[in-house]
Parts: sequence; C-alpha cells; structure tokens
Amino acid sequence: MKSWIEIPANSDFSIHNIPFGVYKSAHGPRVATAIGGYVVDLFQINAAGLLGHFNIPSEVFKSAYLNDFISLGKVMTNGVRNRLQELFSEGNTELKENEALRNAAMLPINGVEMMLPVHIGDYTDFYSSEDHATNVGKMFRDPANALLPNWKHLPVGYHGRSSSIVISGTPIHRPKGQTKLDTEEVPTFGPSKRLDFELEMAFIIGKETQLGDSITTAHADDHIFGMVIFNDWSARDIQKWEYVPLGPFLAKNFGSSISPWVVTLEALEPFRTKGAEQDPKVLPYLEYQGEKNIDINLEVLLTPPSAEESTISRSNYKYMYWTMEQQLAHHTVNGCNVRVGDMMASGTISGPEETSFGSMLELSWGGKNTLHLNGGVERKFIEDNDTVTMRAYSEKNGIRVGFGEVVTTILPAK
Amino acid sequence: MKSWIEIPANSDFSIHNIPFGVYKSAHGPRVATAIGGYVVDLFQINAAGLLGHFNIPSEVFKSAYLNDFISLGKVMTNGVRNRLQELFSEGNTELKENEALRNAAMLPINGVEMMLPVHIGDYTDFYSSEDHATNVGKMFRDPANALLPNWKHLPVGYHGRSSSIVISGTPIHRPKGQTKLDTEEVPTFGPSKRLDFELEMAFIIGKETQLGDSITTAHADDHIFGMVIFNDWSARDIQKWEYVPLGPFLAKNFGSSISPWVVTLEALEPFRTKGAEQDPKVLPYLEYQGEKNIDINLEVLLTPPSAEESTISRSNYKYMYWTMEQQLAHHTVNGCNVRVGDMMASGTISGPEETSFGSMLELSWGGKNTLHLNGGVERKFIEDNDTVTMRAYSEKNGIRVGFGEVVTTILPAK
Repeated sequence: MKSWIEIPANSDFSIHNIPFGVYKSAHGPRVATAIGGYVVDLFQINAAGLLGHFNIPSEVFKSAYLNDFISLGKVMTNGVRNRLQELFSEGNTELKENEALRNAAMLPINGVEMMLPVHIGDYTDFYSSEDHATNVGKMFRDPANALLPNWKHLPVGYHGRSSSIVISGTPIHRPKGQTKLDTEEVPTFGPSKRLDFELEMAFIIGKETQLGDSITTAHADDHIFGMVIFNDWSARDIQKWEYVPLGPFLAKNFGSSISPWVVTLEALEPFRTKGAEQDPKVLPYLEYQGEKNIDINLEVLLTPPSAEESTISRSNYKYMYWTMEQQLAHHTVNGCNVRVGDMMASGTISGPEETSFGSMLELSWGGKNTLHLNGGVERKFIEDNDTVTMRAYSEKNGIRVGFGEVVTTILPAK
Repeated sequence: MKSWIEIPANSDFSIHNIPFGVYKSAHGPRVATAIGGYVVDLFQINAAGLLGHFNIPSEVFKSAYLNDFISLGKVMTNGVRNRLQELFSEGNTELKENEALRNAAMLPINGVEMMLPVHIGDYTDFYSSEDHATNVGKMFRDPANALLPNWKHLPVGYHGRSSSIVISGTPIHRPKGQTKLDTEEVPTFGPSKRLDFELEMAFIIGKETQLGDSITTAHADDHIFGMVIFNDWSARDIQKWEYVPLGPFLAKNFGSSISPWVVTLEALEPFRTKGAEQDPKVLPYLEYQGEKNIDINLEVLLTPPSAEESTISRSNYKYMYWTMEQQLAHHTVNGCNVRVGDMMASGTISGPEETSFGSMLELSWGGKNTLHLNGGVERKFIEDNDTVTMRAYSEKNGIRVGFGEVVTTILPAK
C-alpha cells in the first residue's frame, strides 16, 4: 500500500498505521489521525463528506476525547481507518486534488499541540514482565526466591490514579513525601531522592461490559481499542516506606505520562508474535489461542539539562510474560466491569539484558551502579530538569507502525 | 429550627440535614433533597423561582450526577441548603401554600428510585481505623507487632475501582477468582468462599486542584463536599492470594455499595469531636487544629434469605485514628490532583469492642468463631442471598442528621 503523501521510511505514521488522537485546533479539540509529517483533522474530512457513508455525527469529531468515536464500535472505527487508508492511497484523488481541504485539514505535525486522547475512567497497572519482577524481587526481597508465589499463576495488577495521567510534553514536579532510611527510627519529609521512570505500554478499552460480566481471552481483543506508550513515574524512596501492605500510592499518583496517538490493535496485528512459555500451566480461564504477544521495539532516552540525549534502554513489548488478553480476562473474571477509555498498563517492560531494563532502579541496580551518559553526565536516578523520552515502534517486512514518543521534563519540587 | 413538614423524631432527614442526591424521575434524572418522608425535586423548586436569586441554570438540576451542582462551589451549595431550610421552616409559606408545586415536587421517599449521586473520577480507600488495622495485623501477620511500622506515621491508602461503585439496592454477584489454601501447592478457581463486607464512610471531593498542588489540613474542609456510607465488599480468600506485593485488586473491584444521599460537611459540623491522640507525633504536614473527628453512629444488619434481620455490629466514625483532613493532606502532598466527585473511603471502621468490629473477618475472627443470628441462623462470612444493610446517623442535643442506609443483596456467582 503506497500513499500520494511523501512518508519517510522511518516514519512511525505510515499508511499502515492510521492512529487516532485529539489535537487542539483554533476552534477547540478535534479528532485526528497522523500520516507521515501531517496531522489530519477528521472533523474537516467528515464535514467534507469524505467519510459520508458512515454517517457519523460531526460532534464525535469535535469532542475533547476519543471516547465517543471509540464507542461507535470496531466495525465503524476500523471502517473509518480503512477508508482513510483508501483516501491516502496512491491513485486516490478525493483528498489529494481538493487543495482547499488539503490545506485546511492537513497540518504539519510539528506545529500541532496534542491533547490527552481519552477520558480515562479507571486506570490499572499490571506487573507482567518476568525480568522486571525478578529484578525487583532480587533487590527488595529474596534473591533466591525473587518471584512471589502468585506471580506465575496470575497477572498481578493494582489500581492507579487516572486524574494524574498527562499527555506527552506536560512537565511534572518532583514529588515530596515521607521516606525513611533503614538506619533511621522515624520518617522524614522532603522531595523524593530516588525519582524514576517505568517503561510501559498501555491498552485502552474500546467496548464496555456490565458489572458481573467477564471477558474471555478469546473475546478480549474485541474490547481493546488500541495502545499508547506509558511512563509510570515512580518515587522509589516514597514507595519503599508506604507500599506494605496495600501497594504503591503516593509513590505513583503524582503523575503518569502517555503518548498522544492511539495505535489500533488492528494496526499492530502484523507484528503479533508467540507469547512466553508459561510454566506452571495457567488455570483454564487464562489459557489462550494463537500468537498474542506483539513485537514492539521500545527505547528510553535521557536528556540532561546541559547535555545531549543518551539512549539508556532498549527493550521490547514481546518480553511480556502475560498477554493483554490474559490481563483483561483476569481483570474481569470476578465480574469487574470495564468502560470505554479505561487504561490498563503493562508494568515495567524489562528484557533479559542489562541494557534492556525499563527503569533506573534496575539500570543502576538500586543506586549501586552509576550510568555514564553522553557529555560526561552521570546518573543513578532522575535529576531535576532531566527529560525522559520513550519511543515505540513495530517493524516487519519493510512495514513500520509506530507510536511516536512520550516526552516529559521533571521540574524541581514545588 | 422547626418545619411545617411533619418529621418523625427518628428521621435521618431532619431540617438540620438537607442532603443532596439524584433520583430517577419520569423525565430523567433530577437533583433532589430529602426531608422527613419526602424527596424534594430541586429542578421543580428552581423552575418555580424559589431558588431564584442564585440564578442556577436549570440543566444543573436535571443532570445525572451532582457534579455540576457541587462544582458551583460551597458559597452556592451552602446557600441553596440554607434557602431550602428556610423554605421548609415553620412559618414559611412559599412552598407550603403552593399546593400544585408541593404535590408535584414533594414525593413520598419510599416510592422513589435513587441513582448514583456523583460521577466518581477516582476512588481511594484508606485504612485508618486503628482497631481494624490491629485486628487484621493480629490475624494475618504478627500478633505482637500487629501494626506495620508506617501505620502511625501516615494514613495508609490505595487506589480502588470507580466503575464498580453502585448505589444502594443494586445486587452484587458473588465474585469468582483464584484462591490457594496454605495446605495446597497450586491455586484453584471458583466462587469466593469468604465473602465479606467492610463498614466504611466515604467523603466526596467538592473542589478540584491542579496537578502539582497540595491541600493543607487547614484548607481540606473547603475541598470536601459531603459524605456517604460505603460498603467495601471484599473476598478474603481472593485477597489473601493476590495482595502481596501490590495490594488488593480482584478481591475488591467486583463491587462497592454507597448510600444515595450525600450529607454535607456543614450538616455534620455540630457533631465534630476530638480526634484520636496521635503518638508518635505526626510530621508537620499532617498536624491539624480543632476537633476533626465526627461522632457518627454506625450499624450493620444482616438479613438472611429466610429469617429476620440481626444487628451484627455497632461502631462509630469517631473511632478513626486519621481524620479526613489528614487523609486529604496526605493524598495531595506529592502533588496528586483531585477532581469534583472523587471518592475517598475511610477503610473499615472498627471500634475497640468485639461488637463494634466492621467486617465478618473480625466478627468471626478469621472464620474461627460463629455468629449466632436471629432465627437460629449461623454465619462466619456472607452467604448467597444474604442482604447487608448499613446505617449511619449523628445525634446530639435532640438534633439528628442521618445518612439513611445502603442495602445490598449478594446473588450467587454467575
């Protein structure tokens, strides 16, 4: 499939992608897609009749969130995506030769401000990378029994904060909180000294269920609209003191950052790959058929305030032990309902190599090792005014489908 | 303050209360208050000009949720509450002598269906009763060191699921899930065998903050609109197997039940009482001035399918170790933002006596003891088709302000 739009070979937004997002137009929020170096305003495309046969109300495309669009259902949203691919295809002149529309609706991507793509009802974070869970277990618990007994029987997850999930480009202040050193009797209060990122991907619910209903692994994909990159900011010193017995709270809820473009599950289908061998055998409700991992290249870059960026991790979504389908089946097996826009993150995605670890905690091994970055900069955790960038893309047989990036600068504590 | 409406002395909805809720009218959802045996439709009261000087758009009173009303701010919402007290006062004839309006807008409370009062963005559950935390610690951890080291330094809390919070009267199916006996090697799957309630109260955020901002204990009450009764349904066997290390997940998110009427913080002011002695001394950001506990009588009743109800617990909100003001200051000290409608529950409220424990887990001491109920019924946990009712009210100097009740029947697993 070729396009009449010039698309660089390394563009995340090939004609095979067609992600969805919301940008800030002069007239308010607008639903859009991205292709090559352009953001394409779907409100205008629809108003011009180019999506005419779907009869989608124009309000859907000037909503502040994709929720209404997603709620149309996959038959419609995949139909729109296919139609957009047709409009952008070599030989199609409907948009190409409508110069006025092209000039108004196709905006250079670098000049556009993106918004949070979905209204997130509930946010769940899983803990599904075996290498990450093993690394954390080695550091904080028992190196000989790093994984807890439940870890290979169920995809461990917990609820997080949806109010503080922000779009790429939004700076986050270093959190303050209680911490306690092992050598101290009582806690002290102040800015976190062990601020960290977590390299994650998140999926977005596309079809709701009612309380009491469950989603099987076989039907899970019907309920998943697409994915974004997710940076689960974490304050390790706050986490250590607060998290027993009820889990992370203030160590996480000061902010999480996501990439702006939702890449549909359908765009990712060509990059499906075999899931991890699961031993011990999982309970029947967690069994699944087919290749349900996805080969998504992930990278993390750290840019200090006074030096160039350094790549500090290269990982891959395929390192996940539990698949999204298993996570969603588990999440709903008790009757918990899901709503369109709910976000479910993977947990830190670490690979087996030290260069593929998805957090500073692992990269510096709890602060024992120093990372040597470009320009002679050294880091164990994230410092004030550092910028963390995460990128993600799939590539196979010359076809590339990517997520763009999520970029966040950490400001000093308020 | 007396009313021209006949209000029984034991009514939760005295003229001193004036709670807010949403009921299902023939024309859709309507914001309402309750007084004596009546639900009063505020859309009609406003349309008739009786709230005229506030100039509140009529849409606010036909919204499905109180969020728009609450977002008007306390000057307005307290103004409306005071004005309603005036309209209901002995001697005031504006509503009393408008027979057509009275007949249309004042509905017998027993014939009215209530709806979830607020759209809940994020739901947080604390763990702030010392007796409850001590009981749980004794049963599950170390009887000699029942409280964990952080417990008296910070109000332990965690994020829960907002999608599955339902209104009183909504039945909930017994959840299924993974459990593992200590004597077994591997987990099994099936309906929970240790289903439990948790007697809690929850407060509702009335004023938002921006990411990065914190709320001090001195300003916390400006951000709290009011309170409801909260039943935090829990599956103890699922919880035991899943909750280490990231906290409760499927053991809780299959459903939580709340009472329909939001009692304002201002209506509860007369019942403020001294907070718990806190030793060790808390960090400065958790210090507070004044009497910040509230004397709210709580009771739990269990009605088996084939016998009359039995009162199984009598507790009081004043047993809380951490106040709402401390919880909110802690929740936001790291910059976590809050939104109107966010719900923050207390955690199980147990008192010092065995008859004041707020869960079956504590009442049956982990299933070791049998509760003997009316009609010869015995219980250790909640059985299918049992109904659990929680009631809450404050009373002082002949003035009563109550919450009504939250009633939930447990249906068999689906």
